[in-house]
Amino acid sequence: MEKIRVAISGYGNLGKGVENAIKQNKDMVLTAVVSRRKDLKIATEGVKIVSFDDVLSLKDEIDVLVICGGSATDLPEMTPFLAKHFTVVDSFDNHANIPLHRSNVDKSAKEGNNIAVISVGWDPGLFSVSRLYAEASLPEGKSYTFWGKGVSQGHSDAIRRIEGVVNAKQYTVPRSEAVERVRNGELPELTTREKHTRECFVVAADGADKEKIRETIVTMPNYFADYDTTVTFITMEEFERDHSGIPHGGSVIRTGVTGKNNISTVEFSLKLDSNPEFTGSVLTAFARAAVRMKKEGFTGCKTIFEIPPIYLSEKSPEELFATML
Amino acid sequence: MEKIRVAISGYGNLGKGVENAIKQNKDMVLTAVVSRRKDLKIATEGVKIVSFDDVLSLKDEIDVLVICGGSATDLPEMTPFLAKHFTVVDSFDNHANIPLHRSNVDKSAKEGNNIAVISVGWDPGLFSVSRLYAEASLPEGKSYTFWGKGVSQGHSDAIRRIEGVVNAKQYTVPRSEAVERVRNGELPELTTREKHTRECFVVAADGADKEKIRETIVTMPNYFADYDTTVTFITMEEFERDHSGIPHGGSVIRTGVTGKNNISTVEFSLKLDSNPEFTGSVLTAFARAAVRMKKEGFTGCKTIFEIPPIYLSEKSPEELFATML
Repeated sequence: MEKIRVAISGYGNLGKGVENAIKQNKDMVLTAVVSRRKDLKIATEGVKIVSFDDVLSLKDEIDVLVICGGSATDLPEMTPFLAKHFTVVDSFDNHANIPLHRSNVDKSAKEGNNIAVISVGWDPGLFSVSRLYAEASLPEGKSYTFWGKGVSQGHSDAIRRIEGVVNAKQYTVPRSEAVERVRNGELPELTTREKHTRECFVVAADGADKEKIRETIVTMPNYFADYDTTVTFITMEEFERDHSGIPHGGSVIRTGVTGKNNISTVEFSLKLDSNPEFTGSVLTAFARAAVRMKKEGFTGCKTIFEIPPIYLSEKSPEELFATML
Repeated sequence: MEKIRVAISGYGNLGKGVENAIKQNKDMVLTAVVSRRKDLKIATEGVKIVSFDDVLSLKDEIDVLVICGGSATDLPEMTPFLAKHFTVVDSFDNHANIPLHRSNVDKSAKEGNNIAVISVGWDPGLFSVSRLYAEASLPEGKSYTFWGKGVSQGHSDAIRRIEGVVNAKQYTVPRSEAVERVRNGELPELTTREKHTRECFVVAADGADKEKIRETIVTMPNYFADYDTTVTFITMEEFERDHSGIPHGGSVIRTGVTGKNNISTVEFSLKLDSNPEFTGSVLTAFARAAVRMKKEGFTGCKTIFEIPPIYLSEKSPEELFATML
């Protein structure tokens, strides 16, 4: 069997997650890593390192390119550009801009006769498709998404930009009383504050004004002002010992009514020691799906909603029907 | 907008569940109920009642036929026959025979230029697709399915056939210690006995030998012998008060490793007050998918693995991309 030749564009935490996942998928091989960084070293041996400026040189050498970039500025430019030349997969996660991104990528992918899978990972991704299956199965009901306990990278970055902060990590924590009310089928209306709390662990510079740092965090608009936020100051040793991981997770819960007044609860949940590794693993499964759909003659932009799940599995349809259905 | 015209074949608990679900889906209308029973009365007014012998008279009157029959003898005959003439959906749930059923139905559906969706509901169905997404996302890991707490119809029937039993209900109960070990990522090897217990509530006839009934139940091969089974004798009043529902549920849990040794846990779970109503609701969503796929020119037998989730939703693709992804 010929292996699927994969290239990764961008070698941060997510790119490394994809690199790890490819090793767990026997039908795939990592062929190249594309980066803007000079003298990049990567963990896997024998893999070509290509400058982003020369990415088109990979045209006949790979079957799919997994684009690991930020949703704010990288992916809105990169995915439409690369979809003209390659079968691509990205994890674009700016929910409000997905329709625009989808339409830009769709145009490019069709020009290039390629498949471009966007917005896969877990949210958007597995959470999205769970919302869809749950709502289709229970049309009269209400869906809830809880995130965490897990590290929010954006919120941690926001704290690190405050004067006097040396390092910081922010955890989003779902309120268990809210989760229980949802699971019990109470269909509550929940405010932002009622759904999640935010826990911040901060290493302050020597002599920094800790009360001022705390006040700056808890009143920060958009990031923290709408939440109950706790700030705990710790030493650099404690930070490195207890807060070096990037865990995350969460739940999609839908409760609804069938018949006269029977309650059904559908829940999909994740608990991840490493968010970027799991997200990379999901991207890798969708890279397989993209290659298969391209082979079958499909083109254009596809989301998880439009992809038959069977394309994700390394196993044959016959094996899946016999063992997994 | 023209509504999707649905007929139901078989008016037991599942057929009634589909009837209820159609009322919750604004793009659908119940057009006919097909039955072998004479002088059938149904809950919805203005719906044609058709004898099974005249089912072909519905050929130009419906868009999809939902077949609600038993997997032991009804569906292996009915679905291949009906797929020649109609777009159909069934809930065939004899896992071991799915490949054979699929191949029989596929042949018929292609002859008739129809789409036939088989084996939808929750297991097989939503549980199957959860196993697939979870395994594709975590190739190195182990998947577990727990059923219950819920009523097993087949096991309840088996008890009712014992001499001296007036009525009975059997609940399958997952062992919480097993579920916890799985959730903790221990990847345990679990025997049948370690995964579930069976609780039986039995109304005995006056003067019946209760100890003999208990012994007959707990030693019954295939059904109970491999489980820790409890038998509780109750009065008919208690039976009707506490055991008249048909609840069910369960969980698909997969734990796996990413990167060096990071654990991920993926869990999909259901808690259902009414198993047949929820299953009927899932069948109804797949009836919509079947009609759409047929319109787009697909033919043959499809399982949940082969159906793009987007076809299940009443909402437009644009609305789904903007609000649910």
